[in-house]
Amino acid sequence: MSVLSRRLVLLGMAAGAAVPTHLALSAEQVLPSWRDGAARDAILRFVQETTDRSSPHFVPEPERIAAFDQDGTLWVERPMYSQVIYCLDRVPAVVRAKPELAQVEPFKTVLRGDHAAIARLSMPDLEKILVATLTGMSVDQFASEVKAWLTSAKDPRWHRPFTDLTYLPMIELLQYLRANGYRTYIVTGGGQDFVRLYAEAVYGIPPEQVVGTAGAVDYHYAKDGKPVLIKQPKLLLNDDKAGKPEGIYFMIGRRPYLAFGNSVGDREMLEYTKAGAGARLALLLLHDDAKREYAYGPAKGLPPSKVGTFTQALYDEAMKQEWVVVSMQNDWERVFAFGQ
Amino acid sequence: MSVLSRRLVLLGMAAGAAVPTHLALSAEQVLPSWRDGAARDAILRFVQETTDRSSPHFVPEPERIAAFDQDGTLWVERPMYSQVIYCLDRVPAVVRAKPELAQVEPFKTVLRGDHAAIARLSMPDLEKILVATLTGMSVDQFASEVKAWLTSAKDPRWHRPFTDLTYLPMIELLQYLRANGYRTYIVTGGGQDFVRLYAEAVYGIPPEQVVGTAGAVDYHYAKDGKPVLIKQPKLLLNDDKAGKPEGIYFMIGRRPYLAFGNSVGDREMLEYTKAGAGARLALLLLHDDAKREYAYGPAKGLPPSKVGTFTQALYDEAMKQEWVVVSMQNDWERVFAFGQ
Repeated sequence: MSVLSRRLVLLGMAAGAAVPTHLALSAEQVLPSWRDGAARDAILRFVQETTDRSSPHFVPEPERIAAFDQDGTLWVERPMYSQVIYCLDRVPAVVRAKPELAQVEPFKTVLRGDHAAIARLSMPDLEKILVATLTGMSVDQFASEVKAWLTSAKDPRWHRPFTDLTYLPMIELLQYLRANGYRTYIVTGGGQDFVRLYAEAVYGIPPEQVVGTAGAVDYHYAKDGKPVLIKQPKLLLNDDKAGKPEGIYFMIGRRPYLAFGNSVGDREMLEYTKAGAGARLALLLLHDDAKREYAYGPAKGLPPSKVGTFTQALYDEAMKQEWVVVSMQNDWERVFAFGQ
Repeated sequence: MSVLSRRLVLLGMAAGAAVPTHLALSAEQVLPSWRDGAARDAILRFVQETTDRSSPHFVPEPERIAAFDQDGTLWVERPMYSQVIYCLDRVPAVVRAKPELAQVEPFKTVLRGDHAAIARLSMPDLEKILVATLTGMSVDQFASEVKAWLTSAKDPRWHRPFTDLTYLPMIELLQYLRANGYRTYIVTGGGQDFVRLYAEAVYGIPPEQVVGTAGAVDYHYAKDGKPVLIKQPKLLLNDDKAGKPEGIYFMIGRRPYLAFGNSVGDREMLEYTKAGAGARLALLLLHDDAKREYAYGPAKGLPPSKVGTFTQALYDEAMKQEWVVVSMQNDWERVFAFGQ
């Protein structure tokens, strides 16, 4: 895309309508943390094509949906998903309420604080921890527990609140899309009601635009007669892999024009997005920056990871289907708002 | 509410922000199909209280959610829910595709066109018809079947497309709320993906703001390798009674400030809405107008109905909880856009 056509996009020609003055930015001012290159160009071209009324691929504003995975796409997912750290951090409080759990696995291991043993916990053991810490309480109690944790907990590497570990280039991309009439959705394998508690403040994404793995809630009456919703250990939506397009159909009812992921859990969402008519953009973030964040794959020979698997097969499909692979190392000038 | 304070609301003082000129209507121009009275006053007062920045009950715009039942609240539900009529109308096509069903109940009865026998069908028999006509196809095929039916089918009383049988006062109310920064949602026991196919054109409500009873879809690959979503006979969300607040939590993640229903299926949604802090408005439509529409209850001695049961117990709860009961006969100047 030439500098001229870029400027046209940015000056609002793309929106096909009046654009607030602050959006009339020069090419350099848009996506400032993105380096010049194929990935940034593909994004600018996609927005231009879908928002310019004279383009054959113009998309009316109500249909402009962009779907973003969260863990490893909008924020750091290593060494563990933040929500899993939340659940582990909640175990002492759960055991205080039910002291008999102190002698029962896997709670015993978690209480001991043995990081190596915790990292080796089996999936059924992990599920016991998720059920004990994420269900059985009212949705209001859950919300206050999560909010308290978000203000106090620190990540193990940068020693910052987890919500600081969002990628600045992605925040800029969300804002850029919204400024061009797109509604930005999170479509995450993480817990829907967990993510909803900070998505508005952190990403500018309101609760109703967060689609995630969700458990059932049951309608009950409290002692004062008021209705309460109690979180149940019953899965309603497993929003991962094929569950992502299924969840999008269920929760949004429209096919996205743009989807952004980083792992095999996002494959079907990207396929489904690209299979729609017109201009569609699918993107994958490759974590190849050990210095500023992490480097893991195993695509392109990067070391494999327990979370966020970007396999070589996924990379090959991306090449074949013309998905855009974004290299954290090469395409991002800056990774976090707080640092480099 | 005095005429003066009404005018202030309508002139945009209520919105706490610039209001487009076309919204600066006189009191008589707003909700023109509503008669002056307690119901209309309660609506205007609620909007004033929640949108006036100086009001103690001011609600920021992103939190302004209004939830509407559909059948019997936004459009006619008698003698049968329109979607059930759709399913019955689809039976011949289903039998053409699977001729062996012609000799099997309940399909045999439906094919015979025996209205009395059809009205007597048991719930398990009805479910067989719903499964046969609403599942097993791709979501795109389903959409084209429903759209074709919507343009050709006529209701048995007025002989008009079903989408003509929406209540004009309710359309005006949806528009009035949206003009005041509310997002209007449908929260229906009807099929979510059925209602989404006309809600935008008929009510101005986009697909992502329709919450309804929903079945699972499965992600498959068609012969050309493209992904398709196939509708499954597996219930994901039963959006009726307690399922309504549960569905609202799941799909929206915010408690509505206004909820409007007409039957025992809406009770929990209205309770949940009113239990929130600040100004909340719960409304119930009483069908007491046999001449212009239908009269059924059994509240207030109206004859009972197979659909949309407004029981005396619901009426009593409405009085106790200060829900507003809207009388179709007394509160509406006009019922339909096409007639009286």
